[in-house]
Amino acid sequence: MENLEKILIDMKKASCKLAAFDVNTKNNALKKIAENLNNSRESIIKENLSDIEQAEKDGLASPLLKRLKLDNNKIDILIKGINDLISFEDPVNKILGKTELDDDLILTKVSVPIGVIGVIFESRPDALVQISTLCLKSGNCVILKGGKEALRTNRILTKIIIDSILSISKDFDNTIFLLETREDVNEILKYDKYINLIIPRGSNEFVQYIKKHSLIPVLGHADGICHVYVDKFADIDKAIKVTVDAKTQYVAVCNATETLLVHKDIAEKFLPLVKEALDKKNVRLKGCPKTKKILKDIENATEEDWKTEYLDYILSIKIIDDIDEAIDHINFYGSSHTDSIITENQDSIKKFTSLVDSSSVMVNASTRFADGFVYGMGAEVGISTNKIHARGPVGLDGLVIYKFILQGNGHILDDYAKGIKKFKHRKIL
Amino acid sequence: MENLEKILIDMKKASCKLAAFDVNTKNNALKKIAENLNNSRESIIKENLSDIEQAEKDGLASPLLKRLKLDNNKIDILIKGINDLISFEDPVNKILGKTELDDDLILTKVSVPIGVIGVIFESRPDALVQISTLCLKSGNCVILKGGKEALRTNRILTKIIIDSILSISKDFDNTIFLLETREDVNEILKYDKYINLIIPRGSNEFVQYIKKHSLIPVLGHADGICHVYVDKFADIDKAIKVTVDAKTQYVAVCNATETLLVHKDIAEKFLPLVKEALDKKNVRLKGCPKTKKILKDIENATEEDWKTEYLDYILSIKIIDDIDEAIDHINFYGSSHTDSIITENQDSIKKFTSLVDSSSVMVNASTRFADGFVYGMGAEVGISTNKIHARGPVGLDGLVIYKFILQGNGHILDDYAKGIKKFKHRKIL
Repeated sequence: MENLEKILIDMKKASCKLAAFDVNTKNNALKKIAENLNNSRESIIKENLSDIEQAEKDGLASPLLKRLKLDNNKIDILIKGINDLISFEDPVNKILGKTELDDDLILTKVSVPIGVIGVIFESRPDALVQISTLCLKSGNCVILKGGKEALRTNRILTKIIIDSILSISKDFDNTIFLLETREDVNEILKYDKYINLIIPRGSNEFVQYIKKHSLIPVLGHADGICHVYVDKFADIDKAIKVTVDAKTQYVAVCNATETLLVHKDIAEKFLPLVKEALDKKNVRLKGCPKTKKILKDIENATEEDWKTEYLDYILSIKIIDDIDEAIDHINFYGSSHTDSIITENQDSIKKFTSLVDSSSVMVNASTRFADGFVYGMGAEVGISTNKIHARGPVGLDGLVIYKFILQGNGHILDDYAKGIKKFKHRKIL
Repeated sequence: MENLEKILIDMKKASCKLAAFDVNTKNNALKKIAENLNNSRESIIKENLSDIEQAEKDGLASPLLKRLKLDNNKIDILIKGINDLISFEDPVNKILGKTELDDDLILTKVSVPIGVIGVIFESRPDALVQISTLCLKSGNCVILKGGKEALRTNRILTKIIIDSILSISKDFDNTIFLLETREDVNEILKYDKYINLIIPRGSNEFVQYIKKHSLIPVLGHADGICHVYVDKFADIDKAIKVTVDAKTQYVAVCNATETLLVHKDIAEKFLPLVKEALDKKNVRLKGCPKTKKILKDIENATEEDWKTEYLDYILSIKIIDDIDEAIDHINFYGSSHTDSIITENQDSIKKFTSLVDSSSVMVNASTRFADGFVYGMGAEVGISTNKIHARGPVGLDGLVIYKFILQGNGHILDDYAKGIKKFKHRKIL
């Protein structure tokens, strides 16, 4: 696109203004979006049906068609999501700390928006509404790029959102922009000068591609190789229930479990029972040599299996000697995403939760709970397996940073360098 | 180095253990380091003198020689810094949030170390002690690379630190490692699998080089193009005092001011007075056309000057029409580092602090205050002009991230997906 740099410069300028918007203006804009989505159902669904028609012609697979579809029910959920977002407190302008450095010299740490964020997301057009409203509430400008099969739907949704916010204040101009081509995505990757963060939702390969081709910081996630570890002190019923849910509740998502680790002392009792339950869901099992001594007719699991995200009805199983081996296995083969322990023992809980290096660590609960909506964040802008800025499901909290404000009264450093004055460093907050 | 990958694997493993260390063990290790630094003054200074002797032979410039020198006074400061660090609360294991998702299903957000951090720093060998002790207190493993002219000093300091911590616990093994060559730095840049963050302290070019050659997230800083804006409502005396300090207190550092912006209504009165004060410090002034009408004999400032970090006794001056123009100038030409307003007017303060997009915004105070020690963080591991994770001076707070711990009782997502159960999302903390 010819004017892309110009657009980005305008967005960077707009982002400084947006940072200072009060929460009422932002909430009024959100209300207007909800209202206009509700009033535009017919035209949204019409555009979406055109997208679906085209996608069917192009032979898009049926799970993707399901994600592409935006019906009245999904619009209801979107409107409810926006109303939830309105009810959340402003993530911006929170006082995060306050220190009296000296008489009349007060340092305040305040939350502020990040600035301009680029989000590249999958075929779900509802994601466009969730992402833009999260960015609006957190005072960030956002560059959106959705799946090309959802282009017509994304266009009308973007138009509704932009019209809504501009009707509240002209200063919302240049705060949201929809990219339409992959070339434009490649183009924006150059502009680390204007864009502060890229959130690529999609495969590990895609995230790696973005990282390799841009100096802009990236918040993304690698594979989701999640584990359930059934401890020696596990309650067998809970272990079966959680394993089945973690593996089969929705196999195609990153927080589904791929590997089951079982303590050797409980394996003989637990494994035949869990197999019975998993068989009912048609899960293919692959086991280590020790597992195969108990579950004789299952396939072999190899080294490769411990590193594999199946995203399918397949589960690898390994018998381990003790909790330390389980933790080492998870930290070595896992993707620091979500891992669960099933145990009734407090020492095991403490050890597992403090030593497993994952963004979500579950105790007697399914790995499937790792999700922004479940965690009470409203929607999520993405899931991060980074170890800086934000980890796990990223909601409003992950869309802000802070600035320091130092209020003095003609203070100069030289007085302190020369020892004429001394810092007090009294923590106020 | 041949075994570098093996070392990094060991460090990654060690980082998981270090994350679970209690604060007493970490403080005992810090005490031991302080004790051993105190007991080894003679041998440290001996090694440092060898470094200095070699550097003198190599013709190192005298400001660099000064930075290289580690004398008894600097060792005193290091020991005091470690004792301060011991007195700080543990940045790890803090409960950052708690939500009851449902009966018996509690989500806790807990601070944890980042993992393995690489820090590449300048010729000051005291930085090695500050960085490693900050990393130790925050439970991070650290790979250090100092200036090659400080190699002997860095070696003995690293040995003292490692011996000290190992005498407290063998589990501190592989938590600190000193790289000795630039080739090794290039080598580690490949290992985003094992290293979670790189902090390159140094020039903007160096930070850009690291960003271009690695997928590891980078926390660094670009130029420090800092401004003082003298508002229409400024107290002239404060404005002169702060401008002189911000420009001349230490010209070679990133928080020194490079551009002075002056409101047109105060320029005629203020400019001749500030020139008089700056002349005494031999500051070369460069002005915009309007400035030159008042200060007739100074040089011209060009577009290039607004983008230049002089790091020298040079100051560019621009007269602006109103506070909005000042803010736009700062957000466009500045480096989001540190900018100051001089004013007695509350509206100007509010506008400037909320609209200037810099990590530190000063009110009636010198830009030179932007510093980790000044802000009460103890030492700083670096200064960041990133807009994610950490901004401004980075101390212990910037060396941690968080994990979510979800404690259930056999909970499965399917119950919620099917509507059998409903989330409560009751915020406890």
